[in-house]
Amino acid sequence: MYKGINYKLVVKIIGSLIILESVFLLSTCIVSLIYDEEDWIYFFGTALSAATLGSFLLLTGKNADKNMGKREGAIIVSFTWIIFSFIGLMPFWLSNSIPSFTDAFFETISGFTTTGASILNNIEDLSYSMLFWRSLTHWIGGMGIIVISLALLPMFSYSNMNLFGQETTGPTKDKLHAKVSDTARRLWLIYISLTIAEILLLRLGNMAWFDAICNSFGTIATGGFSTKQASIAYWPSPYIQYIVILFMILSGVNFSLYYFAIKRKFEKIIHNDELKWFLITVFGMSIIVMLTLINWEVVNSFYTFEKAFRDALFQVSSCMTTTGFVTADYMLWKPVTWVIIIMVMLVGSSAGSTCGAIKMVRIVIVFKYMYAEFKRLIHPNAIIPITYSKEIIKNDVVNRVIAFVLLYLFIVVFGFVVLSISGMGFLESIGAMVTCQGGVGPGLGMVGPAFSFSEIPTFSKWFLSFIMLVGRLELYTILLLFTPVFWKK
Amino acid sequence: MYKGINYKLVVKIIGSLIILESVFLLSTCIVSLIYDEEDWIYFFGTALSAATLGSFLLLTGKNADKNMGKREGAIIVSFTWIIFSFIGLMPFWLSNSIPSFTDAFFETISGFTTTGASILNNIEDLSYSMLFWRSLTHWIGGMGIIVISLALLPMFSYSNMNLFGQETTGPTKDKLHAKVSDTARRLWLIYISLTIAEILLLRLGNMAWFDAICNSFGTIATGGFSTKQASIAYWPSPYIQYIVILFMILSGVNFSLYYFAIKRKFEKIIHNDELKWFLITVFGMSIIVMLTLINWEVVNSFYTFEKAFRDALFQVSSCMTTTGFVTADYMLWKPVTWVIIIMVMLVGSSAGSTCGAIKMVRIVIVFKYMYAEFKRLIHPNAIIPITYSKEIIKNDVVNRVIAFVLLYLFIVVFGFVVLSISGMGFLESIGAMVTCQGGVGPGLGMVGPAFSFSEIPTFSKWFLSFIMLVGRLELYTILLLFTPVFWKK
Repeated sequence: MYKGINYKLVVKIIGSLIILESVFLLSTCIVSLIYDEEDWIYFFGTALSAATLGSFLLLTGKNADKNMGKREGAIIVSFTWIIFSFIGLMPFWLSNSIPSFTDAFFETISGFTTTGASILNNIEDLSYSMLFWRSLTHWIGGMGIIVISLALLPMFSYSNMNLFGQETTGPTKDKLHAKVSDTARRLWLIYISLTIAEILLLRLGNMAWFDAICNSFGTIATGGFSTKQASIAYWPSPYIQYIVILFMILSGVNFSLYYFAIKRKFEKIIHNDELKWFLITVFGMSIIVMLTLINWEVVNSFYTFEKAFRDALFQVSSCMTTTGFVTADYMLWKPVTWVIIIMVMLVGSSAGSTCGAIKMVRIVIVFKYMYAEFKRLIHPNAIIPITYSKEIIKNDVVNRVIAFVLLYLFIVVFGFVVLSISGMGFLESIGAMVTCQGGVGPGLGMVGPAFSFSEIPTFSKWFLSFIMLVGRLELYTILLLFTPVFWKK
Repeated sequence: MYKGINYKLVVKIIGSLIILESVFLLSTCIVSLIYDEEDWIYFFGTALSAATLGSFLLLTGKNADKNMGKREGAIIVSFTWIIFSFIGLMPFWLSNSIPSFTDAFFETISGFTTTGASILNNIEDLSYSMLFWRSLTHWIGGMGIIVISLALLPMFSYSNMNLFGQETTGPTKDKLHAKVSDTARRLWLIYISLTIAEILLLRLGNMAWFDAICNSFGTIATGGFSTKQASIAYWPSPYIQYIVILFMILSGVNFSLYYFAIKRKFEKIIHNDELKWFLITVFGMSIIVMLTLINWEVVNSFYTFEKAFRDALFQVSSCMTTTGFVTADYMLWKPVTWVIIIMVMLVGSSAGSTCGAIKMVRIVIVFKYMYAEFKRLIHPNAIIPITYSKEIIKNDVVNRVIAFVLLYLFIVVFGFVVLSISGMGFLESIGAMVTCQGGVGPGLGMVGPAFSFSEIPTFSKWFLSFIMLVGRLELYTILLLFTPVFWKK
């Protein structure tokens, strides 16, 4: 009773999403008009073309059967991200803000995947509308991820949300809400509220409205595009930097926990293993980094204690929440900080947030699994269940988590080899892979915070664009499209 | 009915092993006398002291109960390696061949763990007897590993040999032999035959007898200490280099396969997944490295095709079999080769050989596991068994393998952080960790083939000594000693 892939529905949904993108493009057009910039024509033109294409696709798929399965979901998600990027790059490319097509694509997909890796070397050269669109791609991407981690990933049953009971067969029973669309609306409300709160708080610190809005888009989406070449270092105010730190950490928390907070289910928050370990790691690693900076100070007499703490916390939370803002060039710090930076980039923060990378829940489960195997060596016949947030986790969930972590690490190593073959250096290859797969932004060495991705080979740019997408969509969504088993039967 | 740890037996066995070491020391004393060197006194003195200590321990444990369990095994093995190193460093230290105690310990444990990482910057300064003892530590260590992977690791049931049926409950049924001591004797015979074969073939290539013997010790034990500062590059003869390559690869093969060959069970060899993937990886990676060297040649006009092939194959097989001999400084090659070098160092070659690192069998199983989980995403209810060498592997064996690989990688990352905190650079920290944990020898950067470990901080030397032991004894043997559950009940 198997039916082929419901292409009509795929086309219809992608069409309606493209129309949505044209609305966002139009809103950027308004920004253009407000600042009296000539760039409005590129946004208007792209919006019009996108709306036309979207309507055409929508009409093509008009009478589509409403049946949607895994395959349709994976195709819609993957192609939406790719098509959005090809449409979204048009204003950059047509206006010559980013003259190279490759660079424009890299920058745009880096935006939509909320990565924040940039090929720009002088961000301030861009017009207000271009900067706004650049930051808006992050915010759109972040919104997308929230729906996807709710609606699509549970279908494949490899979702993080499994661990939060989005599935009836999940290990825990706290369903946020039965209907996906209601849940999405609720989480979007949290997403929008966080954004507005940050905008207001940044404005209170005397950041210009425009910068406050754009940088808040970059924070809540854990993206990392700023409006200034120097990123957040442009604003030396400790108040502003602590606000950004606060919202980066808030964006690294599972959004369901905010819902629990509203519902006053505080025990859910207190018993959440992921939150606990996320906070322990952020502060623990920041303290280690801070200590290396204080030693440093003996030589430099540059860092005060507060500044060392702030710089350490900023860089660690930025990398761990996969945001990618910077207030200091960690490549000038001791190598040990690079190691810590790479580690937290691999780990990432919470599932159910806009963050990328492996995510803390999986790391926690892997450690519990290793510890259980350890105990089993001494007591071979003991039954050692793995618990998470006070609930026992089923074996097949554990297996899925471990397969994910192994696959994630395998892709890092594979890409490390590919990038180094493409001609990038050792530090650059490992840094670029980890940062792009995790959706962070800055890497190591020549792709570190003080530089950009502009100088890497063209092949590497396309490869890393692909990797950003693979990482953003939790590996399998994209990789399954390359398996014959996905298409046949 | 639990009895405490049988310390008497532990003491007795360690005592008898120390007496064995004193015999090896005496044999080195003879080498000293042959070359008319004054160093004989240090070997004689150490041998005498060791024999006295050994006899004392033997007598202390005279009436020991013969019951030996896991705990006794783990303690004996761990302490033997440590005590052997403390005794074995004495001739180096007392004779001032290696004036620093830390360095002498590092060099000796690097020998016994068949690592081959050295703190010496002018090896030719050592006397013949010191060089002989240095190489002999490799050969003793290699012999030890063969017994242990047969006798001790199966007891813990985390052995590689599991996969070769050393246990009745193992996944396959080809027991080499019922009695461990018989098997050990048989494998030692293979070990000794390989050593003699290499000595004779190197001698045929006009290598001096002394060098032929010492370098063969280093090859068959997959150690890597040579008698020359330039390692095998000292002998530019392609014949000698190919002979060393051949024996490095032969030493990377599971020794049971030689037994199967003798018994004419060739189908066991043909169907062996580990052998297949080991050879594919060695030659595949060598070809990639060779291609990067040929590109290089356009600039340098230095490499002929044959030399590029030989250099690539030598370095890759040396690192993959965790030997550590070199004929070229790969740090002068493109960064992509470093990436490949680090990867093959992590993988290692076969279980049941003298090699270290993760070992190919585990990598093969991890890939099969990931692939099975991949298929399960599409067909959630399908039962997808994991096969290895045409036999289905039980789930708990797969779990154990995965826990091992994860723990191995975790220790690499942990050590990477520790070493970078201790003040080593990024490349140096990752290179030193991977090379010492895998028992290879040369690392990257300032601990690369052209340099030594002499310049790293004292703390790092002790830490890496510990890591060499942890890696050599398959992680758990040592790590279990640090768990409370090991000691109590």
